[in-house]
Amino acid sequence: ADTEAMDLARAHQDRLTKPRGALGALEDVAVRLAGVAGACPPPLPAPAALAIFAGDHGVHAQGVTPWPQEVTTQMVANFLAGGAVANAFAAQAGASVTVVDVGVAADLPEAPGLVSRKVAYGTADLSQGPAMTSDQAVAALEAGIAVAVDLIDAGAACLITGDMGIANTTASAALICAFTGHDPALATGRGTGVDDTTLELKIAVIRRALEINGLSTPPASAAPPAVSEGVSEALRTLAAVGGLEHAALAGFILASAAARVPVILDGVIAGSSALVAVALSPHAIDYCVAGHRSAEPGHGVALDHLGLRALVDLDLRLGEGTGALLAYPLVGSAVRVMHEVATFDSAGVTDKDTRPTSP
Amino acid sequence: ADTEAMDLARAHQDRLTKPRGALGALEDVAVRLAGVAGACPPPLPAPAALAIFAGDHGVHAQGVTPWPQEVTTQMVANFLAGGAVANAFAAQAGASVTVVDVGVAADLPEAPGLVSRKVAYGTADLSQGPAMTSDQAVAALEAGIAVAVDLIDAGAACLITGDMGIANTTASAALICAFTGHDPALATGRGTGVDDTTLELKIAVIRRALEINGLSTPPASAAPPAVSEGVSEALRTLAAVGGLEHAALAGFILASAAARVPVILDGVIAGSSALVAVALSPHAIDYCVAGHRSAEPGHGVALDHLGLRALVDLDLRLGEGTGALLAYPLVGSAVRVMHEVATFDSAGVTDKDTRPTSP
Repeated sequence: ADTEAMDLARAHQDRLTKPRGALGALEDVAVRLAGVAGACPPPLPAPAALAIFAGDHGVHAQGVTPWPQEVTTQMVANFLAGGAVANAFAAQAGASVTVVDVGVAADLPEAPGLVSRKVAYGTADLSQGPAMTSDQAVAALEAGIAVAVDLIDAGAACLITGDMGIANTTASAALICAFTGHDPALATGRGTGVDDTTLELKIAVIRRALEINGLSTPPASAAPPAVSEGVSEALRTLAAVGGLEHAALAGFILASAAARVPVILDGVIAGSSALVAVALSPHAIDYCVAGHRSAEPGHGVALDHLGLRALVDLDLRLGEGTGALLAYPLVGSAVRVMHEVATFDSAGVTDKDTRPTSP
Repeated sequence: ADTEAMDLARAHQDRLTKPRGALGALEDVAVRLAGVAGACPPPLPAPAALAIFAGDHGVHAQGVTPWPQEVTTQMVANFLAGGAVANAFAAQAGASVTVVDVGVAADLPEAPGLVSRKVAYGTADLSQGPAMTSDQAVAALEAGIAVAVDLIDAGAACLITGDMGIANTTASAALICAFTGHDPALATGRGTGVDDTTLELKIAVIRRALEINGLSTPPASAAPPAVSEGVSEALRTLAAVGGLEHAALAGFILASAAARVPVILDGVIAGSSALVAVALSPHAIDYCVAGHRSAEPGHGVALDHLGLRALVDLDLRLGEGTGALLAYPLVGSAVRVMHEVATFDSAGVTDKDTRPTSP
């Protein structure tokens, strides 16, 4: 990120007609986006484009979710028909919706709004061995990069991550454990709403996945593994316990950073994918805004590890990009302040800090 | 509120293509708005109208803030010129902005967007006796009612509270102490950013105001005073330690409730005004949505007392309606879901709860 633009943005915030720091976390967002664009004020993050990456998961066979796998395909159809929550939120926010088949376990009919970048018909079962081959993981990464590049070429000034994949909170938790060193018991949640028995099973499955794939989980109290432990190890981890949509999202984030376009992260799937992206390219984090904090415990772990503060925290646990879509107008508001708000000087408003400090 | 419409809204949420409860607090917002309108789905809360009630405070003379009193007038000019943060956020949210002079301590020139309902040139010093006469408090209440009625008559389907008044966090904290029984040390904050010395002074001033006005502050651990302690006592409290903009905001909230239009509350000034409104008419709370939780400790106290959960929590401490404006698209998103999202049946998506529960 451009630290000079960030310094300028911070100084500009302090001249605006409001008490210093009175916009709280939104001031940090505006400064961050100045760093992303290398400009102060940063450009308004509009138009925005949501990409929902859909993929299936071999680990579904372990019974980690009560939802049948076919729901991934059904929800893709729902997105394309405009009937999902993500569509409603995107309409409210003024964001476009693109659905990307990067690994759905069925053949999908062509449809407007559907981009086919299918790498495989779902992953293999991560609790039995690697979920993907290296080639698959890289192909999915490249698919995410290509989608981001296409959206940015078409004019998107802000990307929003979305995902759909029954059982993908299991892969997310496994990635989070592998990248942060947290125990599966701390990073695994109820996803779309599993009962106690299934949650226990899910934790055990993730533990087995980490073991069988040779992914060490040092105690969380120990220092986190160095981010620079290597691109090849990051790719190996992604292939071992990630999903095709996770790989694509990591690529999406990396491409966003490369193009200096901000990307708003949705929930735990995006958070775990961001861990992959950052392991591949540490500076990618500077281009990410955490849209929301989901009810999944692993998401909090990932956000803490990434050093991101979420803008929306309303116990959402839906995915699809819904939390990030809710955050989008907040990001827009933060940037708009930099363009439209008067300074103390220009508005003729007395600044308390230019007066004697005694009352 | 219409509990039948709320039950219908809850049942409808459960049929939508998402896991039950997956929209967290936004599901409660949609249900609440169904109760407000007495309809399921409730109407989209658009267009929205922000009213910024401006007033000055005699307690400013006690040195409770480093900002000079003239900043109230200057900021009104800034709002009217479109240069404040509230203007930028309103533009982002698509809300109209009306500025209401209910008690600014200066004569304001007529201007488009400015409604003159001046009751007095600021309040008296609440630490020396009542801030307002009963007649003034009632007149300011009526001003707020009139503004709400005018905005609703002009088509507003959602009202948003805003405020401007140097020293108004002092009056807010005093109201919160009087209505909730909390000690001033717990309910008083730094407002626009006072130092430790001024904070101590501010707490002492509020303590003196409560004493001199005969407002008991029972220990917060005791049961809160019954809401029904009487309209006359509520009015007396408002007049004693409130501001003209607090009185107007209480009227604004009451009129909103009477018209069955939702009102999004901003920060600590709106929260303390809502305590007044609820003391006058307990059902008014059903029509309120807490837009945000400000950095002021008294605001958390007020929200807890009102039983409201804030939608945005980003350490804002600006006022003007800024926090409520940020929440407005979230409210819109919550309601839009009720109109646009497909049900499991209509979309042909398999619902986990209609299948055998074993995986």
